[in-house]
Amino acid sequence: MTTGDSTSTVEVGVGLLGYGTVGSAVNRLLVENADDIERATGHRLRVVRALVQDVEKERAFPAEPGMLTTDPAAVKDDPSISLVAEVMGGIEPAGGYVLELLAAGKPVVTANKQLVAQRGAELFAAAAAAGVQLRFEASVCAAIPVIKVLREALVVTNVHRVLGIVNGTTNFILTQMEGGATLGDALAQAQRLGYAEADPTDDLSGADAAAKMAILATVAFGSRVTLADVDRRGIEEITPAHVAAGRELEMVVRLIGAATLVDGKLDVRVRPSLVDREHPLAAVAGAFNAVMLQGDAIREITLEGPGAGGIETASAVVADMVSIVGTTATGFLQNDACWRTLERLPAGDMRSPFYVHLEVDDRPGVLADVARRLAAHDVSVARLIQAPADGGAALHVVVHEAPQRALDAALAEIVQLPQVHARPSVLPVVSDRGVAELGWA
Amino acid sequence: MTTGDSTSTVEVGVGLLGYGTVGSAVNRLLVENADDIERATGHRLRVVRALVQDVEKERAFPAEPGMLTTDPAAVKDDPSISLVAEVMGGIEPAGGYVLELLAAGKPVVTANKQLVAQRGAELFAAAAAAGVQLRFEASVCAAIPVIKVLREALVVTNVHRVLGIVNGTTNFILTQMEGGATLGDALAQAQRLGYAEADPTDDLSGADAAAKMAILATVAFGSRVTLADVDRRGIEEITPAHVAAGRELEMVVRLIGAATLVDGKLDVRVRPSLVDREHPLAAVAGAFNAVMLQGDAIREITLEGPGAGGIETASAVVADMVSIVGTTATGFLQNDACWRTLERLPAGDMRSPFYVHLEVDDRPGVLADVARRLAAHDVSVARLIQAPADGGAALHVVVHEAPQRALDAALAEIVQLPQVHARPSVLPVVSDRGVAELGWA
Repeated sequence: MTTGDSTSTVEVGVGLLGYGTVGSAVNRLLVENADDIERATGHRLRVVRALVQDVEKERAFPAEPGMLTTDPAAVKDDPSISLVAEVMGGIEPAGGYVLELLAAGKPVVTANKQLVAQRGAELFAAAAAAGVQLRFEASVCAAIPVIKVLREALVVTNVHRVLGIVNGTTNFILTQMEGGATLGDALAQAQRLGYAEADPTDDLSGADAAAKMAILATVAFGSRVTLADVDRRGIEEITPAHVAAGRELEMVVRLIGAATLVDGKLDVRVRPSLVDREHPLAAVAGAFNAVMLQGDAIREITLEGPGAGGIETASAVVADMVSIVGTTATGFLQNDACWRTLERLPAGDMRSPFYVHLEVDDRPGVLADVARRLAAHDVSVARLIQAPADGGAALHVVVHEAPQRALDAALAEIVQLPQVHARPSVLPVVSDRGVAELGWA
Repeated sequence: MTTGDSTSTVEVGVGLLGYGTVGSAVNRLLVENADDIERATGHRLRVVRALVQDVEKERAFPAEPGMLTTDPAAVKDDPSISLVAEVMGGIEPAGGYVLELLAAGKPVVTANKQLVAQRGAELFAAAAAAGVQLRFEASVCAAIPVIKVLREALVVTNVHRVLGIVNGTTNFILTQMEGGATLGDALAQAQRLGYAEADPTDDLSGADAAAKMAILATVAFGSRVTLADVDRRGIEEITPAHVAAGRELEMVVRLIGAATLVDGKLDVRVRPSLVDREHPLAAVAGAFNAVMLQGDAIREITLEGPGAGGIETASAVVADMVSIVGTTATGFLQNDACWRTLERLPAGDMRSPFYVHLEVDDRPGVLADVARRLAAHDVSVARLIQAPADGGAALHVVVHEAPQRALDAALAEIVQLPQVHARPSVLPVVSDRGVAELGWA
């Protein structure tokens, strides 16, 4: 970056690892907006080399002659390159390249969700040791600047909860289901529109959301959270009945990632949930993403926008570059993002209001039996709707905030009741207000 | 700030202009979160002097002995102070102090909405000339980091529209009116809850929102926008009938600030508007604020949160301090925020879908007469609801996007019709989708 002379323009050579959809869009944004960047930073950013597998392949925004290379050393060892963006994807060789670049003193921007989620702690430590920045805004929710806001705007706010809709595919599907579609129909439509891959497993299973929540929890709480620490469930088993029950209860079904700090222990989970219609996350429709940050000094701040897309991702990569140029040699954000080690909260200790769906015999006493079992475990019913169902009745029960363990224990007894037909279906409830304040008490 | 040594901790002396609710909260956040700030920046920030009118007055978070002073020179001339926050409010003497501090080479953070809205261009120029930063996140929407996102994350996205709910008092009132309250009732409740001042004129008239939109437009478009450039109308004339019409049309009434760039000309206005229920801003309830940024590379990003409050405002002031410390001597954001001069779009050229309320005789031909006048000016009706009203009928008309001038011309003819009883009431309509896509065509 050379020294930070604030009066004269400094040219900054940029290296790219990858020149596909995102990489070529990064080059385009740097070329087309060079004046804007210079105005903001006093620097002109120019791509010098881009690592690719095939130099001859046709590109959306063509590289300048001689820019493309198949040799990673051509990026790492070029002294005119003082900033590198990793936009190639995959764990290896991308991870190894990033470590080498950081060790060589070059700050790195990465858009690689899996790399950061799986090897973030190692990469952050390498960046801190080398005294250079590693930025990764584009790895979570594309252009929504949630990492920047967490790390730069909320330094003194003690963020203790992050709630997110961080997978656009499942949010699109769930929104379509509100309009009457089945999961299968909605998925097919998502695939037609390009929102879902041919193999949608990572989206439907919550694996994609879990990777993003691992990154958000790591940054919010400063403690390493890996994919394995995220307790996840996907939307595969969500049916029109869940959506209908939500409507009846004035709630909507959303796949919610929740990272929570409870008495110094952390809990990170991804779950299909019922969200109170008044909650800001309930309004997030279609393929959009949103992240709500809750902290002491800010109450809550929600950021919403498109969570995917080539140009959106590229714009986040360029924003990180701009921020690196703007903060180099100040000591800013050169700390290890994982600066402490927090214990995981035992899963059963996590408290939430819950929705429980039960199928039961339609005869007197069932309701009392269910309510008695819940009460015996200090789980208090906030609202109950009984509706006729095939050969019996469906009970929709909303319970006040309770530890997962207490609800599980009560349900273990409830499933033993002869009047209960099938395994209960349980969704957490997300609400700003306690359910009591919803007028359900 | 001394030089940016990234390995050893540097102590940064802070001066405060003002030590009231916000000032004392800034001191408290700096004291209680000193470790967090050091971790992020490598610097410890400590308040050295705070300018007050009365040293003896009791404070929420008491100042250290000797910290309070009534002499502005004690802040400006103290060489140990390298960063100052203006949290005293008012145009003068605050404005003069800020100019002197900038000229003396001290970066300034201000929470002063009126100062930035009325004298922003002069202050930005002074900061640029001195090569120091002026930051003002807290002047708009408290802790919602919209200025940071605009200036740092969206450098290459060509933001062309900013839509905001930037006054919590009026949003609270309008939300209450949805529940059946009159404007008077809702205002009284807002005053009881402390959301509204004893004299609510600045909120109700849109003056407060106009000041915030002037700042947002200036930053988003890089062109000076003053209060006088903002065409504003308040909510004083909003009645339960507007709210009821909104409900009928699946929309809600909100006070919307809109800054738009049209063919290189800018338009900034504040208007009570009907917002499509599916639009992200429709979900903003109670005293919350939200700002939607629309740009080429990001589509749209919405930030939502509490737009007021002492600790929220203080947290934004501290975030600006952290950002200044983290970017000093890099040339970052030391440009003049008003780097170009854009013309104002002639008001009549601004295009929008509109809602028009008319009171008419309930007899054949009225509807045809109204529709004919609109059509004669190329204003196309998207939806029309006729309902009985006192001594006649109420017409609720939604028209497709049209220039304000065309609608005004049509309405000038329509009010001449003998069947039309009163001046029409017109609200802009805010929708993501064209009204045609709303299924109204």
